[in-house]
Amino acid sequence: MITNPVPWPNGARCAVAMTWDVDIDSGVNVYNPDRGDTLINSQSQTRYDVHAAVPRICAFLKQQGMRQTFYVPGWCIERYPATIDLLLEGGHEVALHGYLHERPNEQSAEDERYWLELAIEAFRRKVGSQPLGWRAPSFAFSKHSLGYLIERGFTYDSSLMGDDVPYMLRHGSGKLLELPPDMTLDDWPHYMHNRDFRFTMPISAPARAMEVFRAEFDAAWRHGGMWISIWHPYVSARLARFDAVAELLAYMQGKGGVWFATAAEIANHVGDLIARGIWTPREEVLPAYDSPLPELKRGSR
Amino acid sequence: MITNPVPWPNGARCAVAMTWDVDIDSGVNVYNPDRGDTLINSQSQTRYDVHAAVPRICAFLKQQGMRQTFYVPGWCIERYPATIDLLLEGGHEVALHGYLHERPNEQSAEDERYWLELAIEAFRRKVGSQPLGWRAPSFAFSKHSLGYLIERGFTYDSSLMGDDVPYMLRHGSGKLLELPPDMTLDDWPHYMHNRDFRFTMPISAPARAMEVFRAEFDAAWRHGGMWISIWHPYVSARLARFDAVAELLAYMQGKGGVWFATAAEIANHVGDLIARGIWTPREEVLPAYDSPLPELKRGSR
Amino acid sequence: MITNPVPWPNGARCAVAMTWDVDIDSGVNVYNPDRGDTLINSQSQTRYDVHAAVPRICAFLKQQGMRQTFYVPGWCIERYPATIDLLLEGGHEVALHGYLHERPNEQSAEDERYWLELAIEAFRRKVGSQPLGWRAPSFAFSKHSLGYLIERGFTYDSSLMGDDVPYMLRHGSGKLLELPPDMTLDDWPHYMHNRDFRFTMPISAPARAMEVFRAEFDAAWRHGGMWISIWHPYVSARLARFDAVAELLAYMQGKGGVWFATAAEIANHVGDLIARGIWTPREEVLPAYDSPLPELKRGSR
Amino acid sequence: MITNPVPWPNGARCAVAMTWDVDIDSGVNVYNPDRGDTLINSQSQTRYDVHAAVPRICAFLKQQGMRQTFYVPGWCIERYPATIDLLLEGGHEVALHGYLHERPNEQSAEDERYWLELAIEAFRRKVGSQPLGWRAPSFAFSKHSLGYLIERGFTYDSSLMGDDVPYMLRHGSGKLLELPPDMTLDDWPHYMHNRDFRFTMPISAPARAMEVFRAEFDAAWRHGGMWISIWHPYVSARLARFDAVAELLAYMQGKGGVWFATAAEIANHVGDLIARGIWTPREEVLPAYDSPLPELKRGSR
Repeated sequence: MITNPVPWPNGARCAVAMTWDVDIDSGVNVYNPDRGDTLINSQSQTRYDVHAAVPRICAFLKQQGMRQTFYVPGWCIERYPATIDLLLEGGHEVALHGYLHERPNEQSAEDERYWLELAIEAFRRKVGSQPLGWRAPSFAFSKHSLGYLIERGFTYDSSLMGDDVPYMLRHGSGKLLELPPDMTLDDWPHYMHNRDFRFTMPISAPARAMEVFRAEFDAAWRHGGMWISIWHPYVSARLARFDAVAELLAYMQGKGGVWFATAAEIANHVGDLIARGIWTPREEVLPAYDSPLPELKRGSR
Repeated sequence: MITNPVPWPNGARCAVAMTWDVDIDSGVNVYNPDRGDTLINSQSQTRYDVHAAVPRICAFLKQQGMRQTFYVPGWCIERYPATIDLLLEGGHEVALHGYLHERPNEQSAEDERYWLELAIEAFRRKVGSQPLGWRAPSFAFSKHSLGYLIERGFTYDSSLMGDDVPYMLRHGSGKLLELPPDMTLDDWPHYMHNRDFRFTMPISAPARAMEVFRAEFDAAWRHGGMWISIWHPYVSARLARFDAVAELLAYMQGKGGVWFATAAEIANHVGDLIARGIWTPREEVLPAYDSPLPELKRGSR
Repeated sequence: MITNPVPWPNGARCAVAMTWDVDIDSGVNVYNPDRGDTLINSQSQTRYDVHAAVPRICAFLKQQGMRQTFYVPGWCIERYPATIDLLLEGGHEVALHGYLHERPNEQSAEDERYWLELAIEAFRRKVGSQPLGWRAPSFAFSKHSLGYLIERGFTYDSSLMGDDVPYMLRHGSGKLLELPPDMTLDDWPHYMHNRDFRFTMPISAPARAMEVFRAEFDAAWRHGGMWISIWHPYVSARLARFDAVAELLAYMQGKGGVWFATAAEIANHVGDLIARGIWTPREEVLPAYDSPLPELKRGSR
Repeated sequence: MITNPVPWPNGARCAVAMTWDVDIDSGVNVYNPDRGDTLINSQSQTRYDVHAAVPRICAFLKQQGMRQTFYVPGWCIERYPATIDLLLEGGHEVALHGYLHERPNEQSAEDERYWLELAIEAFRRKVGSQPLGWRAPSFAFSKHSLGYLIERGFTYDSSLMGDDVPYMLRHGSGKLLELPPDMTLDDWPHYMHNRDFRFTMPISAPARAMEVFRAEFDAAWRHGGMWISIWHPYVSARLARFDAVAELLAYMQGKGGVWFATAAEIANHVGDLIARGIWTPREEVLPAYDSPLPELKRGSR
């Protein structure tokens, strides 16, 4: 099923990285630029990250002796430092998720760079180091993102969805490792119902949503893949859903042969395999297109 | 899981408030301001509140010896007084839900105040007392709402969703207790399919929707939380769905250790704990932002 | 649960009318007025009514010895006469469903009357009698509909959703019996996925959709109600779904105590009860509002 | 249930054609004509076709000794030749799916013809023969499509949904066999969640989606029908979903009496039955309408 499987540490059958996007109220503001200040309820929903969800996750992981990965917008790092302290105290990986949850591919190249610098600066001031990982807000990786991330020394990206295993992104002479997640492992489609985000979908019971996450895990386990969740604390760490997350983790642990790791640990492991010539990733050059397809100039849709 | 649990009366494991938003046809009118008068079918669907649903709920609760909380727009109080009589005769808590189901955060500060006064006036004329509780229509709590509610002497709000337990909202020197519900306990995402409301979603079987409500209850029970449903009589008190509501209630009763209360009773209990220094709520100052984020002036989205 | 239950014939516990809206490609055209002629695929999907679904239903009902109710737009009667022949040969009730599946409440009073006359004329020419029943296309009953239907001598309407049992609509000195269906018994929310109709929803398995229809039936049976489905042949009489319909019918038959009837038979039975003073319906005056609510002039939404 | 069943080879109870639409990133570009080049994430999701999904399907089918049908836009044939090589090496049927996944019914007649020629030319250059089959991108078959397909010598179309068995499309003196699929057998409604495609729906677990596909198969098997899936490699050949596909195939095989075939094989079999006078298809003349309905000129909607 997987043509180029990665040899995971200790002969593990698959790698699992539970990763969280800690957006807090950045998205409420950025996707409602003219009235984010008036969306008090959505602010309350998303600040649940700060007041309940992130502390809950950290306490649970401490009890489990696990470290996980948290993608945080730079603005959230600045505005909610105590939340970052919690993550750092737990030894978790904090990685970048834009500055204000802006969509890079809807910005000019200059604006994207400006905001990326803001994000990196916020990260460095608080965390004291260079960020290793990046996930584009809304997965909106732009044509310029890869060049910028390489230039700023990132170790890996986790925004694109083109494979079951890590692959290498190339831009000019630079390279960046991609750790692909997939929409299938995002909690948003199962639980989000909020007019301010323009999402009016049914809400699944935790047990139903978990069928999806577990099916993907079973397949990754069976075929030697990689399982990277895209969870949002204020979405998946509400009480009942977090119980379901804990159940899923217990299920994974019970199955055995799973390497639980942070995204950065996976990137490091894979980087090491590559350096030692043990495993070679597929390469992909970005961007694929310099402009909209010229074919489209002839009337169509 | 909950860092600051509330000691519930008689050592109960959790508090349960089944609360109902009795919108009748206010929303049909307010969300279709130019043609609400022409939406005869949606009027019929929502007036089911008056002709079938509220009487059904009241009869059932009488049989159960229970009192619950009903949030009603002021205009509905004026227009459908017999429905309010039923609620008052049952000893239920009637609380306010705007005047015409308007969204305060889409109004000017002056308009919001004007409509709030209309709502309070309608309430006082009919109920003969000051309303204790408020739920913002569409949860659209505005930047001004907190100040106004404090000024008009409300005891609690139940519109925001920032925690699993009550918390305190502060505005200047004033305070108001928040009893947070959550979208997860709203019936709308499971059952609503109506073009006039711009909701074209699948409709769940009652048993499927109840999986969500029961999972949340089980979690609240396990972790000492609070469970506040946001149900609409014309949605959740149709025949088959109301049977499912009754089953859920029986399940909760069978589990034991549950404090069934109105929202006002919860607010009073919590207020008493605070006054006696037994329990201290988290505090949150509102509004968080005076204007759209200045960062957003630099091109982004 | 039902405060004013109808005494059904032979002491039956509930009445069941499986009713079908035979839209064929009227809706494709009317909801895409500028390009309905170009939507060849949607035309093919909806003409499945003619080529497979209605013949299938008729054959099945013949085998069962049952008659059911089919609401058909006048334009479809004119354009697809063989389909109407099939229905008439089976002894089924054919009733009206607009002329071209237009929405009366989006038309002027004059246009509504004009199209209603077209529909009645088409019906009379083909069926040879006056139509007894009406269901407004898209349930879009207008402020003028009731007056027009009374004036043209209809026996009942089945468009509004304000109760669990029949009720009486009054306009001036005229009256019309309402046999209320509900969105819960419509197949659209479970199965429709078509861009040309602006519906992009998940598609349910027949067994899942049937959970909804069966739950409503069980409740109607338990509480003495009325169960009126709103099915579309090209939606619910595709092979797998129609097997599920047949299973549901067998389930209902097996439960016993069910009065299977056409909508017109229910209307006649109820009319007879009223005339004999055995049962009195609730009355509702329409329209409720002459214009958009004057309260809405003060800035809100 | 089926009035005009096809005698399948060797007395099989039904025909099954698992067919795949290999869109790769054509749709990303064509449905976002001004910014397809910036949608790096959606490009990555859809190029999963190239890097993982199509190779996976081909390997699986080789192991099964099966050939299936793959509808591919001409532009994809040009741009991703190695993917086409894989399909051809496996002996699979490659058929056409537009040039760039454009919607013919949103093009002028001239543009449609221009793009059709591009698509055929791309096909012939790579495959070395005339394409036999066509599926309109987005099922957007136009008023002109039938004439063009007949003129260019296609053997069959698989875009329309008007029956359970093949039927004949007629345009002037020309004819083309239709092998109708149905939206019910499309994977999109179950799995798609992507803003760039304007689809924000819940994502089903593979086991839930398969309930739909299996129910349709069981019905086709019971009633002598035809089962044609519309799957997308990057959607249904992700790991967990492809395991579910393999399970479904095993279920079908276990049931027995199934004729597994490519669409072209079905077309040939049916063509042969017709030529020998063993079976006669229903005929349908297209287009049904020359222009929007004249009735619609009188104000309505």
